[in-house]
Amino acid sequence: MPVNLSAPDPAGLHPVPGVLLGIAEAGVRKANRKDVTVVLLEEGASVAGVFTQNRFCAAPVQICRDHLARGLGIRAILVNTGNANAGTGDDGLMRAKSTCIALAQHLDLAPEQVLPFSTGVIMETLPHDRINAGLPAALADARADNWGRAAEAIMTTDTIAKAFSTQVQIGGATVTVTGISKGAGMIRPNMATMLGFMATDACVDQALLGQLAKDLADASFNRITIDGDTSTNDSFVVIATNKAAHAPITSMDSADGRTLKAAMQQVAQQLAQAIVRDGEGATKFITVRVEGGKTAEECRLAAYAIAHSPLVKTAFFASDPNLGRILAAVGYAGITDLDQTKIDLFLDDVHVVINGGRNPSYREEDGQRVMKQSEITVRVGLGRGTAADTVWTCDFSHEYVTINADYRS
Amino acid sequence: MPVNLSAPDPAGLHPVPGVLLGIAEAGVRKANRKDVTVVLLEEGASVAGVFTQNRFCAAPVQICRDHLARGLGIRAILVNTGNANAGTGDDGLMRAKSTCIALAQHLDLAPEQVLPFSTGVIMETLPHDRINAGLPAALADARADNWGRAAEAIMTTDTIAKAFSTQVQIGGATVTVTGISKGAGMIRPNMATMLGFMATDACVDQALLGQLAKDLADASFNRITIDGDTSTNDSFVVIATNKAAHAPITSMDSADGRTLKAAMQQVAQQLAQAIVRDGEGATKFITVRVEGGKTAEECRLAAYAIAHSPLVKTAFFASDPNLGRILAAVGYAGITDLDQTKIDLFLDDVHVVINGGRNPSYREEDGQRVMKQSEITVRVGLGRGTAADTVWTCDFSHEYVTINADYRS
Repeated sequence: MPVNLSAPDPAGLHPVPGVLLGIAEAGVRKANRKDVTVVLLEEGASVAGVFTQNRFCAAPVQICRDHLARGLGIRAILVNTGNANAGTGDDGLMRAKSTCIALAQHLDLAPEQVLPFSTGVIMETLPHDRINAGLPAALADARADNWGRAAEAIMTTDTIAKAFSTQVQIGGATVTVTGISKGAGMIRPNMATMLGFMATDACVDQALLGQLAKDLADASFNRITIDGDTSTNDSFVVIATNKAAHAPITSMDSADGRTLKAAMQQVAQQLAQAIVRDGEGATKFITVRVEGGKTAEECRLAAYAIAHSPLVKTAFFASDPNLGRILAAVGYAGITDLDQTKIDLFLDDVHVVINGGRNPSYREEDGQRVMKQSEITVRVGLGRGTAADTVWTCDFSHEYVTINADYRS
Repeated sequence: MPVNLSAPDPAGLHPVPGVLLGIAEAGVRKANRKDVTVVLLEEGASVAGVFTQNRFCAAPVQICRDHLARGLGIRAILVNTGNANAGTGDDGLMRAKSTCIALAQHLDLAPEQVLPFSTGVIMETLPHDRINAGLPAALADARADNWGRAAEAIMTTDTIAKAFSTQVQIGGATVTVTGISKGAGMIRPNMATMLGFMATDACVDQALLGQLAKDLADASFNRITIDGDTSTNDSFVVIATNKAAHAPITSMDSADGRTLKAAMQQVAQQLAQAIVRDGEGATKFITVRVEGGKTAEECRLAAYAIAHSPLVKTAFFASDPNLGRILAAVGYAGITDLDQTKIDLFLDDVHVVINGGRNPSYREEDGQRVMKQSEITVRVGLGRGTAADTVWTCDFSHEYVTINADYRS
């Protein structure tokens, strides 16, 4: 059961001018399952992507990088579930390319104008013929108001669809930002991968979009962890269709640029946090904020050390205000000149640790009250500077072991 | 239940000339529990230690480092269970010092000739008075053949005592190496820490011992992982009593030096592996060997990425030959120029992955046969050099979550 996360209300998902989405059942792995999604972009869209840093990256990730680098203008996105096409060598590359070629032929595009995405079982052969056979149905289904159905169609072990949308005013125009994501575990060999797709009709030059996508990912998808495992297929794509009636944004540091970026960041964070809320076996949503660092980087290190620790995560599952586990994680985070006598620790508003030792006024029942909540903020002060960073994670439950110890089936 | 590990046979634990061990029940945390151990060294022993790199290190670790640096000659070791004296600030330092002073007074030593070790609950006040009150009983109990009882007395959540012993011939003399360890989780806030103590009567100059202790730790305790969490109290101490009737070893690269080091490394690896075999919830003992690297360091990174991955560890628990999880871990291990098309993967003798893809002759039933064993070797070839490294770990079970989600009690 996801933590404080409901299925998206289709009425709240604003279409993005210049974007159509179509879904089909292609039988990639199982029958009667929506498993192929196409996203069609009108000519002139700016598109950028951020991809897994895993060296063992999947065939579609390699092709996406290549096609984006060609600069022909991305016009279509093709997503399949049921098979990740990872660990499949040259054969996997050829099969992924075949799907790009097939979709490009339907749309009279170059294959390099298509970005392919796959999520599902690793190291099994992609049934590209089935995907290609499903394309006409997906294309026939293409509509502007299909974001909610697309969010469902890209799910794998997700228990709930993830889609968010907002609108802002830019230069007198109403600009829409809508996105979908899927996750569950950072990687499941059954059903792998985090995917995120986000589109706006704002007018943003292609030259700005690469950095924007990176900045958005760094503030959202790159700040979450379920189990510390980095998927072979993780991908996040940002699209600006340039359809809105405002003067083009030429700098993200302009007033319009900041307005748009804030809206996009809000949706990106909602999409990323939704993945944590629906994390495998999650019963709690935990915000880990580390402050008082010399650099944001060291705060991030400490926050991830806490968020990755199986001992910390099982303590959250147990609602055990287990101070030592959090402090120990900070201690091994890699901040070599850390002074343990400067450390503060808060659970929500409860001041647990002061100067590296138990706060004399701390009462265990106060800590336990917070630990029983379904949403908890852990705040650590390093006492060595003014930098801060935040990551989001979930707890580690019996259900996680059960899900991941199930034989692939 | 530990994986293929029996309680030590006291008859097989050779006393080490120059070392006496005494045990007492001091009621540190619970009554009727052997919780204080003293190790007494005759004058002239060489002693070195390797300690946790956790910046949030416990008071006794700080004192050990200081006392070893003083160079007055270590004559006694004092270990308590039930309380880790970590996260206790200046007060914790004073209490730990008080126990050193008390033991030194009994033995007519300087306090700086005593090394203190604590393991147990974090962030609770050390009841140093109870420890000090227990010293006379521990001293009265001091005997050369107490290694087995000492191994029991330093246990916390361990389910079985860990002690190993061997003898080798050096320069016509029979030299003994005997050691004890405790662990369970790398850290348990209830009952924290890995501790290892090893003694030989060999004649080794103090000047050689620091590097020797580091080398031994790097080949044993620094090559194991249960859950990736580094304790605040981890300590490993190496003692050479210089009592054996052979010419002093002046270089560990001499023939005698190599003989001794091999015997000590054997015992150190047995002690370290025993901690994994008795890991919290462990049902399998897993050797992860990475070969074909440019450097041993990158092999170690890849081996630890595999050994730390909750997804890999749950797959072992489930006996699921889940190739993708292992390959994905190699991919995110941080080897930035890794070529995935060069990767090989073996489960024991079964060649699972070749050139980064599934081995055409691999049959799932062969992988599953290996995965069902209680001892499994994962061997990864990186195909980029001749370096190799090995780490040992266990699987990740429901029992781990149960143990660590239990409220401290």
